[in-house]
Amino acid sequence: MNRKKVRPLIGQGKVADYIPALANVNPNQFGIAVYGNDGTTYHAGQAHTDFSIQSISKVFSLTLAMKHYGETMWERVGREPSGNPFNSLVQLEYEAGIPRNPFINAGALVVSDMNQSRFASPHYAMREFIRRLADNPNLHSDKVVSTSEYEFRARNASMAYLMKAFGNFENDVEDVLHNYFDNCAMQMNCIDLAKAFSFLANKGYSRHNDEQVLTARETTQVNGLLATSGLYDEAGNFAFRVGLPGKSGVGGGIIAIVPNRFSVCVWSPELNKSGNSLAGMAALEALSESIGWSVFG
Amino acid sequence: MNRKKVRPLIGQGKVADYIPALANVNPNQFGIAVYGNDGTTYHAGQAHTDFSIQSISKVFSLTLAMKHYGETMWERVGREPSGNPFNSLVQLEYEAGIPRNPFINAGALVVSDMNQSRFASPHYAMREFIRRLADNPNLHSDKVVSTSEYEFRARNASMAYLMKAFGNFENDVEDVLHNYFDNCAMQMNCIDLAKAFSFLANKGYSRHNDEQVLTARETTQVNGLLATSGLYDEAGNFAFRVGLPGKSGVGGGIIAIVPNRFSVCVWSPELNKSGNSLAGMAALEALSESIGWSVFG
Amino acid sequence: MNRKKVRPLIGQGKVADYIPALANVNPNQFGIAVYGNDGTTYHAGQAHTDFSIQSISKVFSLTLAMKHYGETMWERVGREPSGNPFNSLVQLEYEAGIPRNPFINAGALVVSDMNQSRFASPHYAMREFIRRLADNPNLHSDKVVSTSEYEFRARNASMAYLMKAFGNFENDVEDVLHNYFDNCAMQMNCIDLAKAFSFLANKGYSRHNDEQVLTARETTQVNGLLATSGLYDEAGNFAFRVGLPGKSGVGGGIIAIVPNRFSVCVWSPELNKSGNSLAGMAALEALSESIGWSVFG
Amino acid sequence: MNRKKVRPLIGQGKVADYIPALANVNPNQFGIAVYGNDGTTYHAGQAHTDFSIQSISKVFSLTLAMKHYGETMWERVGREPSGNPFNSLVQLEYEAGIPRNPFINAGALVVSDMNQSRFASPHYAMREFIRRLADNPNLHSDKVVSTSEYEFRARNASMAYLMKAFGNFENDVEDVLHNYFDNCAMQMNCIDLAKAFSFLANKGYSRHNDEQVLTARETTQVNGLLATSGLYDEAGNFAFRVGLPGKSGVGGGIIAIVPNRFSVCVWSPELNKSGNSLAGMAALEALSESIGWSVFG
Repeated sequence: MNRKKVRPLIGQGKVADYIPALANVNPNQFGIAVYGNDGTTYHAGQAHTDFSIQSISKVFSLTLAMKHYGETMWERVGREPSGNPFNSLVQLEYEAGIPRNPFINAGALVVSDMNQSRFASPHYAMREFIRRLADNPNLHSDKVVSTSEYEFRARNASMAYLMKAFGNFENDVEDVLHNYFDNCAMQMNCIDLAKAFSFLANKGYSRHNDEQVLTARETTQVNGLLATSGLYDEAGNFAFRVGLPGKSGVGGGIIAIVPNRFSVCVWSPELNKSGNSLAGMAALEALSESIGWSVFG
Repeated sequence: MNRKKVRPLIGQGKVADYIPALANVNPNQFGIAVYGNDGTTYHAGQAHTDFSIQSISKVFSLTLAMKHYGETMWERVGREPSGNPFNSLVQLEYEAGIPRNPFINAGALVVSDMNQSRFASPHYAMREFIRRLADNPNLHSDKVVSTSEYEFRARNASMAYLMKAFGNFENDVEDVLHNYFDNCAMQMNCIDLAKAFSFLANKGYSRHNDEQVLTARETTQVNGLLATSGLYDEAGNFAFRVGLPGKSGVGGGIIAIVPNRFSVCVWSPELNKSGNSLAGMAALEALSESIGWSVFG
Repeated sequence: MNRKKVRPLIGQGKVADYIPALANVNPNQFGIAVYGNDGTTYHAGQAHTDFSIQSISKVFSLTLAMKHYGETMWERVGREPSGNPFNSLVQLEYEAGIPRNPFINAGALVVSDMNQSRFASPHYAMREFIRRLADNPNLHSDKVVSTSEYEFRARNASMAYLMKAFGNFENDVEDVLHNYFDNCAMQMNCIDLAKAFSFLANKGYSRHNDEQVLTARETTQVNGLLATSGLYDEAGNFAFRVGLPGKSGVGGGIIAIVPNRFSVCVWSPELNKSGNSLAGMAALEALSESIGWSVFG
Repeated sequence: MNRKKVRPLIGQGKVADYIPALANVNPNQFGIAVYGNDGTTYHAGQAHTDFSIQSISKVFSLTLAMKHYGETMWERVGREPSGNPFNSLVQLEYEAGIPRNPFINAGALVVSDMNQSRFASPHYAMREFIRRLADNPNLHSDKVVSTSEYEFRARNASMAYLMKAFGNFENDVEDVLHNYFDNCAMQMNCIDLAKAFSFLANKGYSRHNDEQVLTARETTQVNGLLATSGLYDEAGNFAFRVGLPGKSGVGGGIIAIVPNRFSVCVWSPELNKSGNSLAGMAALEALSESIGWSVFG
């Protein structure tokens, strides 16, 4: 990977500042970790520094829900790109409370509502699941971050109540929001995340804990969804420039999958206008170019 | 491929009927052709029967425009999924006349406008290009179809004029529409189309006429766009079920790309609610399952 | 007024059924009351039967807010027809949390939020205000109705949280909703309402309690808003057919103003598709025709 | 009327400049004319100076169509405020080609299409009608203006084609646009317009040519439509501030009706952000205040 393309971007973006807890992150950081299907690892930069995974948690939530609900879950959430900002209510109203896909906020909230119906302690179930996938028993959620997100919950609360008005929300809105924000506030580093999502590069199999997380077929399905809807309203541009299934979070992390080969996580806190890590995007583009390979040829 | 999954679908869809010329097609037909990067071919069913390529022509138009305009073309058309029906004007108005991608109608019209500015006889330039790619000098446009489409041009004319109002349309609207419909009305069969798009599976190289149509990088870009926006408002579902870059037309054809291996074209005239070939979708899903492989794992 | 035009409509509409408490009303009822600026009254039918005033309460809320906030209130709510259903969030998102007018739900909620900031016990302040205007110290809110509305608050909660997300909501959402529903659940009859709104026909002066409720200028302003936005998405049709400022509620009541002459209240529980009393609309149209007079000529 | 409120506004607005022919008007002009039901007239300022009536022509078109189509015309055009900019296509697409009201552009185009189906020479029929109503046989359309508007027709052409796509447009789009622009380009002065619309203040009766133009009932209907939809997306504000049925044009003219008393026309070329004459609005507000009377009390 060509560092010359990535380094000049540090200082060009803007750290997420919608809650104070995220705004204080040192912007001048970059980390990368790769986890191969054969167990080899590579990392560079601040790959051991924890950050807030934020929307990357939506992939964990989706995986957990798919394990329990199977095909029936798609009655409550769609599989199409939204073509709208991640927090828009417009489409949700026109489409009677069925969110377009599990990676926009409304979709992730309805997936959280499914998990809420299934587990007595939804956040703890999720935390155990993530710890297992990442092979790291010390992972935890940052209470300062989740409390702050709950305080500024208005937009997400608005979405959840709109879905409730349409009959597509089973549990108490406040309860689901608490668990949702606890999941978003998980602190992980690049190595944790590359490892945790390695099953998506390996036909659903998680090597280090010898677990078939999803079937091979379900794994390609998740990757297909990530490729079309994983990068907010920049999914098309990501497919065009990088060409890998991926998911970003406003904490500055992006995970990407090279099917049958390896999983990767990049992190740099400064975001572009679409809310994706500026240096992270460039790093993945350089990676895709340097290996001369994307899922698209 | 398992024919048992495909055959029962014949009779379940609905042939395109927005113009009389298309409504008269015998619905009880199915064809498939595969063209490997090593030159091997496979075909079955009505693979030699000509049909109207319709929106599949948008991929030819895009390729031709990319060759001439390069990166500059993306100032006039986006690269994101639209999340709206293929012929909607809503997004076009909100986004000041810049269509979301080259595969919705508005995007294809602006690409046609680019080609119109470049060629003295745009349709003939396109026809020559397609003949060369398909290795078939007899290909032609069906005048009855294109005349009928022009007669019912109101929706497309509305889009073109809206872009003109926003300053994103250079040529006379009627002239561009004539050429656009002539391109849509090209008659081709599955073998022609599998061959014509083989360069997208082969890093931009067209083997049979020894031509580097696009660079390897541009080829992955086109495939990325096809994967996120090629199947109307069913792109996410196609990624979920089939997992290949593809493009459909209301004539019932669908082309799909297995990067570095082969291109494929399926055809069956009956459409599902999203305007994609019902049996064609099922055939590609069965193919993807039978080779145990999609771009996503 | 010609009763022959009104009576056949009984049985043609549909009583509001979004909460059980309203669904149980006997549909076969009709009442009318007129209160002249000179103090003369006229009433017929079930003019003494109490009903749920619902959205008619929005006019009381607006009046109270205008008395306290004056021109400054228009920074938080618009004065234009919305052109959208009364409970839509689409426009609210596009226009950054500023509702179009005080009579759609979002607008009434922001007005309630203003009154919440002003009064220690907002609903009691409102109840006293209404009792004074109606000259009836026994008026009260139906707790069964307001509790039921609170239970089904999801849509209104969604709107309030969206405005909060945009910074246009000061108080706790749940608190404001409780007071809002208490106001909507006020039980009044046609005579109460005709009397209570007599100040809008009399340059802001309420004769029976000798109070200048609003200035003459403010009164024409309220009437102007009622004429353009008082009848949900049927305001234009009401202007066309009836030609009077008016406000309807899903309880089946409609108040209308004949400036400088009299106020009127009609009531019949069955609603048309726009949520306005079917027989009430017809009665007002017949009244407007019989007096050969509307505000429009 | 208080001139002190109006004069300072000259120089604060912006003359319409979407076509060169209108951009060259001297902005420093103001005229007013009042025509009473008893035949008395009053005028001041540049009341004899011709200007381009533009959208005020929509009231003439509507009147002519109502005379010929009666109630049936409302199947093709609505009667509700649009809540959207006058030239938006969004609502038109959502509502399947039925424009909200006759005063937004789409609505005026469908009304023009009705008149086109009825008259051999639609513009000449309209011109004769206007000459008769204004009692001025010399009125004509400015060919430079209408030609320029036709050249920049893209937005209006887009709307007309969209309605055609939905089956709500009978004639050739280009033909209707020519006649539409010829009507918009009529040159009239304040006195002509006050006189021409006097029938709307006088129960449909035009005194000077002793003609019952519309029935008394139809007259109140037109006034009701003007009150709810006559001032682009400022109808609510106009009702709030002025409280009279009215119609504006981008040439800077505004007509307003004081039912049963008089019609008035003000003119000043500079427009506010909504496209309404800045000084004209202020003049009408001052007039409404000075006579202590609006239709709303």
